[in-house]
Amino acid sequence: MDAFVLGEKGASLRKDWPRPAARAGWTRVRMQLAGICNTDLELLRGYMGFRGVLGHEFVGTALDGALAGKRVVGGINFSCGECAACRAGDDRHCPSRRVLGILGADGVFAEEFLIPDQNLLPVPERVSDRSAVFAEPVAAACEILEQLGSFESGSALVLGDGKLGILVSQVLAGAGFKVTLVGHHVEPLAWLERFGVTLAGARDESRKYTLVVEATGSSTGLAAAIAATRPRGTLVLKTTIAARHEVDLAPVVIDEIRLLGSRCGPFGPALERLASGRLLVEELIDGVFTLKRVQEAVHRAREKGVRKILVENV
Amino acid sequence: MDAFVLGEKGASLRKDWPRPAARAGWTRVRMQLAGICNTDLELLRGYMGFRGVLGHEFVGTALDGALAGKRVVGGINFSCGECAACRAGDDRHCPSRRVLGILGADGVFAEEFLIPDQNLLPVPERVSDRSAVFAEPVAAACEILEQLGSFESGSALVLGDGKLGILVSQVLAGAGFKVTLVGHHVEPLAWLERFGVTLAGARDESRKYTLVVEATGSSTGLAAAIAATRPRGTLVLKTTIAARHEVDLAPVVIDEIRLLGSRCGPFGPALERLASGRLLVEELIDGVFTLKRVQEAVHRAREKGVRKILVENV
Repeated sequence: MDAFVLGEKGASLRKDWPRPAARAGWTRVRMQLAGICNTDLELLRGYMGFRGVLGHEFVGTALDGALAGKRVVGGINFSCGECAACRAGDDRHCPSRRVLGILGADGVFAEEFLIPDQNLLPVPERVSDRSAVFAEPVAAACEILEQLGSFESGSALVLGDGKLGILVSQVLAGAGFKVTLVGHHVEPLAWLERFGVTLAGARDESRKYTLVVEATGSSTGLAAAIAATRPRGTLVLKTTIAARHEVDLAPVVIDEIRLLGSRCGPFGPALERLASGRLLVEELIDGVFTLKRVQEAVHRAREKGVRKILVENV
Repeated sequence: MDAFVLGEKGASLRKDWPRPAARAGWTRVRMQLAGICNTDLELLRGYMGFRGVLGHEFVGTALDGALAGKRVVGGINFSCGECAACRAGDDRHCPSRRVLGILGADGVFAEEFLIPDQNLLPVPERVSDRSAVFAEPVAAACEILEQLGSFESGSALVLGDGKLGILVSQVLAGAGFKVTLVGHHVEPLAWLERFGVTLAGARDESRKYTLVVEATGSSTGLAAAIAATRPRGTLVLKTTIAARHEVDLAPVVIDEIRLLGSRCGPFGPALERLASGRLLVEELIDGVFTLKRVQEAVHRAREKGVRKILVENV
């Protein structure tokens, strides 16, 4: 079958990749739509040293198991189920986990792929394929609310107008925050104002915020985020970049800032939010390419200002 | 009067420094004992660009005001009392604050100094001068418990066997944490084992902790602290160094670590703890110098493995 594989000599579309065999405890899924994430672009640059089929954002059809024939999305962390983290219900931090298309497990940029049964969730009928494919990044945005706990909503600043920044802005606005989204390409995002999100091309350096989310995907974002956080405020760090940050952390100490690293989130709340119609995600789609044209899709995803690029298995 | 002053050409003992005049709302304090803190050594190296009388850890005698004749210690942040932070009771983060001997206000390495009335607390009789002079760093250690809130106590790792690391270890052990203190000079600290603190010359790299406190005072401490923090664990950052940290923050995101910047703390709980006898602080004293020999005291404080050096006004 066709699969987009990252090997020692770079990534290529392989025509001869073996179709996954049925396996107890696992479901074979036929990929319908898959999303290209910044993490995929980082993996292509060598982040994590991943080798195998790329891709982790998907909506597909279960080919076997309890959900056979149903549309599904699924959690990307394959946990051991036995360690202290797993027993505490925190399978997303299982130390021996593998991660779909990111760490030790083939991903979804292929005609078919394997995923543990317990990772799958059926997609509600009223959620379109083009929305469901956003379940993973929406879950990552929802994770912020989980981490904040009983946080009093107030003013929030989101740095970065990429896909994640836009989803985070919508999720925070939906939770009652007065959100300002800052980025270099906010002009096409006027539709976000319907959600009460204020758009800005640059940060108002005279203002500080109780909550700042760093979603720039850039190594310089953290310093700007620190500068924008109020004393005792919370800074959510979403950016994982291969580069090392060189940043003066003295203000974090002096202002007693709470810095929360934030990664994957819960799929259940993400699907609920997508089903509620309170999130607009299809607006983020800047192009859909067939699996055979996946290299082109990756090129397009790398262009400045381009948001979600999807890969379709037709 | 004598005062240890940091000027454009470095620091020196000035014999001719003007004695502070009485001032409404402020108390003149005669310094009895003052502590040299790592922050003083950093200020001497240019941190914050401070100019004026150095020193912020003290016990003294009030010369006027409501506490005249009494032994006093006091909070180091001079807040405006009018801004949003002050009105919310968070005067330690007043954006226009001055800080005793650190920012815009002369400090305590002098025969006398001025401090706002509301910053002063009387010292309970059973607390010796040599204990009371630790009120400020003990408050900084207690601040961690305030920030953790209703944190479940478990295993904690304290990196750095300097003064602050030792105080933090005692405070955390007193709060029920099973503390391991790691540093290069732990041999003379066997007395800490009475508090249930385990001493180690190096970190056990196979272990991760729910709570890690970075108190190394070194720019390389943060990376070690990140590596030692369990997924979803808490890392308390106490080090303010002039250098910039260059560190890979990807693990903070991937492991969803909560990083808490932590600075000054509440003096009330610190004095209570000192009065309870549950803290041994005099063990930290490695030398006492008269104010006239303050330069020597600073030299001694800079030596490796040396802990608290005090300056005495006799």
